[in-house]
Amino acid sequence: MDSKVKGLAILGSTGSVGRQTLDVIRSFPGEFEVVGLAAGYNVELLAQQAKEFHPKVLSCQEPEKVLASSLPPGCQMVSHEEVASHPDVDMVVAASVGKAGLRPLMAALQAGKAVALANKEPIVMAGEMVMAAAKRNGAAILPVDSEPSAIWQCLRGEDKELSRVMITASGGPFRKRTPDQLATVTPEEALKHPTWSMGKKITIDSATLMNKGFEVIESHWLFDLPWEKIDVVVHPQSIIHAMVEFTDGSVKAQLSPPDMRMPIQYALFYPQRVKNGALPHFNPVETGALTFEELDVDRYPCFQIALEAGRKGLTYPAVLSAADEVAVELFLDGAIGFTAIPNLVEWVLSKHNPISSPDMENILEVDDWARSMAYAWPR
Amino acid sequence: MDSKVKGLAILGSTGSVGRQTLDVIRSFPGEFEVVGLAAGYNVELLAQQAKEFHPKVLSCQEPEKVLASSLPPGCQMVSHEEVASHPDVDMVVAASVGKAGLRPLMAALQAGKAVALANKEPIVMAGEMVMAAAKRNGAAILPVDSEPSAIWQCLRGEDKELSRVMITASGGPFRKRTPDQLATVTPEEALKHPTWSMGKKITIDSATLMNKGFEVIESHWLFDLPWEKIDVVVHPQSIIHAMVEFTDGSVKAQLSPPDMRMPIQYALFYPQRVKNGALPHFNPVETGALTFEELDVDRYPCFQIALEAGRKGLTYPAVLSAADEVAVELFLDGAIGFTAIPNLVEWVLSKHNPISSPDMENILEVDDWARSMAYAWPR
Repeated sequence: MDSKVKGLAILGSTGSVGRQTLDVIRSFPGEFEVVGLAAGYNVELLAQQAKEFHPKVLSCQEPEKVLASSLPPGCQMVSHEEVASHPDVDMVVAASVGKAGLRPLMAALQAGKAVALANKEPIVMAGEMVMAAAKRNGAAILPVDSEPSAIWQCLRGEDKELSRVMITASGGPFRKRTPDQLATVTPEEALKHPTWSMGKKITIDSATLMNKGFEVIESHWLFDLPWEKIDVVVHPQSIIHAMVEFTDGSVKAQLSPPDMRMPIQYALFYPQRVKNGALPHFNPVETGALTFEELDVDRYPCFQIALEAGRKGLTYPAVLSAADEVAVELFLDGAIGFTAIPNLVEWVLSKHNPISSPDMENILEVDDWARSMAYAWPR
Repeated sequence: MDSKVKGLAILGSTGSVGRQTLDVIRSFPGEFEVVGLAAGYNVELLAQQAKEFHPKVLSCQEPEKVLASSLPPGCQMVSHEEVASHPDVDMVVAASVGKAGLRPLMAALQAGKAVALANKEPIVMAGEMVMAAAKRNGAAILPVDSEPSAIWQCLRGEDKELSRVMITASGGPFRKRTPDQLATVTPEEALKHPTWSMGKKITIDSATLMNKGFEVIESHWLFDLPWEKIDVVVHPQSIIHAMVEFTDGSVKAQLSPPDMRMPIQYALFYPQRVKNGALPHFNPVETGALTFEELDVDRYPCFQIALEAGRKGLTYPAVLSAADEVAVELFLDGAIGFTAIPNLVEWVLSKHNPISSPDMENILEVDDWARSMAYAWPR
């Protein structure tokens, strides 16, 4: 084992992936130093985490609410970007939710940091810009989401030439519902994912399969895959996370019980694999069957909308991400129904005048525009 | 693609794997030169193959039956060992059946040839000796059997440290038979394998699961795996050929429709993967479900007998292989019943006085002894 302690910054440390990242770190005392933590509005949990992990820098959306007395000695409140680019940081775990992660991600890449990427909206919004920044600064992007991590693991040691990638989708909680039943889905129902325990935004995105569309877009950018080489197949058990078919027809699959700590740990230790007794193991006999079904695209309009925006490129994916973020928020607030989510997103996309090769300013302008439009959607 | 044409010797060219190897070679004109072909008693097919592939050397068990006029110009009849060690040969495809492959395999390894190994009896009989010869001469052994090939593919690019290997077994044609029904199985029934089309010896070994025991022993030697890290799980679809669980709990599986040309091609081109339109592709939706069951060891006594002989080591595995070869022959001739196969093998093993670190002479002596004992089994 490398004797050097790895310096980490965790963006979104109070969210689901952030907390699970800290769980993994707890399992390996002496391997990691938590240099920085950044969160949104959960100041209380952030202060607790600071007490436990003694970071040098902290960041949150409402720094004025953080009591100086609750900070560990020498710990400074800074911006998310400063957390992400702190000189002692070797790897940034980017686990913010939504667009909020874009600027800190770019700061990490510009500082040449390795990024363990869980927050997929930035790469959906601005894939071209993000990948260019990574390349320009020699910064590696290591996927933390289970499906891209599975692709990455399957590609390990292989010739990069492959014939296709199959990303699995659990199908979410509404795989068997009729269209009528879908219209009346409540936020409580949509937040009950059958296989994964995740944050609210991604759980709703999983129920609509917008999340699966995002994963296709993410995989397109991360692995430089043409769209026609990325398939999605429904696999309700969520044990096979992705499969890669090579040019000779041989397929490799990555399997593990649905637990985010697995891809988190893989990225943190890459290229090493290390034992972690806390992680569940796949037992084929207990599982009994791994099943596959065709994705019923009519049931999941968000998936098609995402794919179309991804393929069109330009600033369409930024609009997609922004409109979806608002739509999910409105749905969770009870302001719109479940089946209104795709309608809203599609309407905003239809109003968009795209910009080619957008820079950060363009992306943020488009994001602002798309959000205002989303709120103005004629219900 | 490497511009150098690869010189091949194919041992057992008229058998199932030999013919399929020539099929793969036909799909890639200009990639391979068939330097030598060696077969048993199928002189007619061997002559046909010689006419098509123009080898420099040929070998068979009854060379006097080969008409000089049927040989391509300049082609010589030599021994199997000379075919395997011919200076123009880069890789030997070892696809003989049973013990017959041991001497030519050793000749290939002693000549430092890369060996694509389909013939598993030699490594079962004499694993220690075979692996030592490979090491001493810097000769690579590339598995051609689908399960060890799957392990090999899953290990590609990975840290060698793994927590276990799961080899799949279709369960053969008699997975659902009662013990009474098993006793009356005919050779015709046993030769109908549900998923694989193979030679007679291996098909019977698959029905008794002796073959699966052989694969465990083969994997133990090829991948230097401790016995307790090798599991077998029943998977009736024969699509996942093996799975490897790494220390972090992540599992990789290799999948492809049951077709021997896949592992043959993988070994021939390794480390390249090349497109072959003739190979079937895995379609998860069409397949529907990949299922797993615990191996019912009571139904398959040969599996347990093989494992025990493997674990005991010394010359027990040589006895195992020899007694099994005779038992299968007797069963196919109608001389003994299907359930007598394990009884015969177990009885011969029980009479054996083992030798440690056996050399070639020891192995062949033990083999002779075990065969005489097998014929003398008191029915």
